[in-house]
Amino acid sequence: MRKVYLVGGGPGDPELITVRGMKLLQQADVIIYDRLVSRRLLAYAKPGAELIYVGKEAGRHRYTQEEINRLLVEKAGSGVVVRLKGGDPFVFGRGGEEVMALRRHGIEVEVVPGVSSAIAVPALAGIPVTHRGVASSVTLVTGYTAERRIDYASLSGDTVVVLMGVRSLKKIAEEMMHTRSPETPVAVIEKGSMQSQRVVTGTLADIAEKAERAKLSPPAVTVIGEVVRLRREFL
Amino acid sequence: MRKVYLVGGGPGDPELITVRGMKLLQQADVIIYDRLVSRRLLAYAKPGAELIYVGKEAGRHRYTQEEINRLLVEKAGSGVVVRLKGGDPFVFGRGGEEVMALRRHGIEVEVVPGVSSAIAVPALAGIPVTHRGVASSVTLVTGYTAERRIDYASLSGDTVVVLMGVRSLKKIAEEMMHTRSPETPVAVIEKGSMQSQRVVTGTLADIAEKAERAKLSPPAVTVIGEVVRLRREFL
Repeated sequence: MRKVYLVGGGPGDPELITVRGMKLLQQADVIIYDRLVSRRLLAYAKPGAELIYVGKEAGRHRYTQEEINRLLVEKAGSGVVVRLKGGDPFVFGRGGEEVMALRRHGIEVEVVPGVSSAIAVPALAGIPVTHRGVASSVTLVTGYTAERRIDYASLSGDTVVVLMGVRSLKKIAEEMMHTRSPETPVAVIEKGSMQSQRVVTGTLADIAEKAERAKLSPPAVTVIGEVVRLRREFL
Repeated sequence: MRKVYLVGGGPGDPELITVRGMKLLQQADVIIYDRLVSRRLLAYAKPGAELIYVGKEAGRHRYTQEEINRLLVEKAGSGVVVRLKGGDPFVFGRGGEEVMALRRHGIEVEVVPGVSSAIAVPALAGIPVTHRGVASSVTLVTGYTAERRIDYASLSGDTVVVLMGVRSLKKIAEEMMHTRSPETPVAVIEKGSMQSQRVVTGTLADIAEKAERAKLSPPAVTVIGEVVRLRREFL
């Protein structure tokens, strides 16, 4: 039976992929990967493996989701085929759409979860997304785009983590101030888990300006909530 | 400098720990682990490593959190010391408290994130916690206990994932029906990622009864939301 492995690559550091994920990359004949995947993960590939980049560039799309789905269907059966995604495939990774496209063609899919950047990037920057007495729930959400309209004011969750939100930070912070104090602590972590990681902290009131001044750019993870204050005691 | 590695073991399958986590277990002189850690993970330990079980048994506590903190401080410096937790240390794992206790004693802590059961257990059971057009946010929360009072009715999140909630499922479902339809799909996944995994699906209205009839017991992960319906197209 034709089969595709849908593998989460984790937050960036190549040692933060799972053991299963690493083994599949080592065996893969074809690896189809996108922008949020660390190039260092591809070093696990064997010589001669076919590496196909399907990242969506900022501004222009190299592959549409439909084209990626078609490519996966086409490649299934060409030996060990790995679809490698950053973080976890099902945390805003559109992994579900790929699974469904493959299943509709009778292709088996094995999902190998990854360490989600939404949780690991804050952790590696000294911020636990939950903490007894401080945060007993956490909501994960994506940044605003024309096609994803999210009501940030209505989000519950003692902690809110926004993936891919650095470009819409001003709008997100403004909306959240409808229901949360302007003094709510916020941290934006650029290139989390990598050596070049940068962290900017502030409040809902000033984080957009601070992030702009620091010229933070994607990929970045934003954490909103009292847990951000714990960072001082962690580092 | 004295140092402790705080390692997330992932959802249970020993291949779902990170590469970094596996390497640390292989090098460890001391491994301090708790109940949610798969025994199969301990197979990575080298001969002669000291394995200390600090799991909190249902009903009676073997170690209080304070005792665990003291043990970590005491063991720090005895070679490579790994504190191994199930899932991710910061998703209701009380990892933050352990980091703070160690830091207060001037002990360095390296955090190695893990694959969170909150995301991976649903994924491995065929349920993506987010999915374009179905769920654009997910809230992670724990089950009800006397010491953790959570207002389940007020939780936003297109998807809600409850960890450690199987014993308080009736109360959680009743509260959630104050704000969500009784027909909201629910899945309870027992022993997720393991060969012995069992899944029971239903709605907010009937899941507590169904789970009781199936005699589901911890560890279990509960997923609430329309994404549960996608399971049919995934399997």
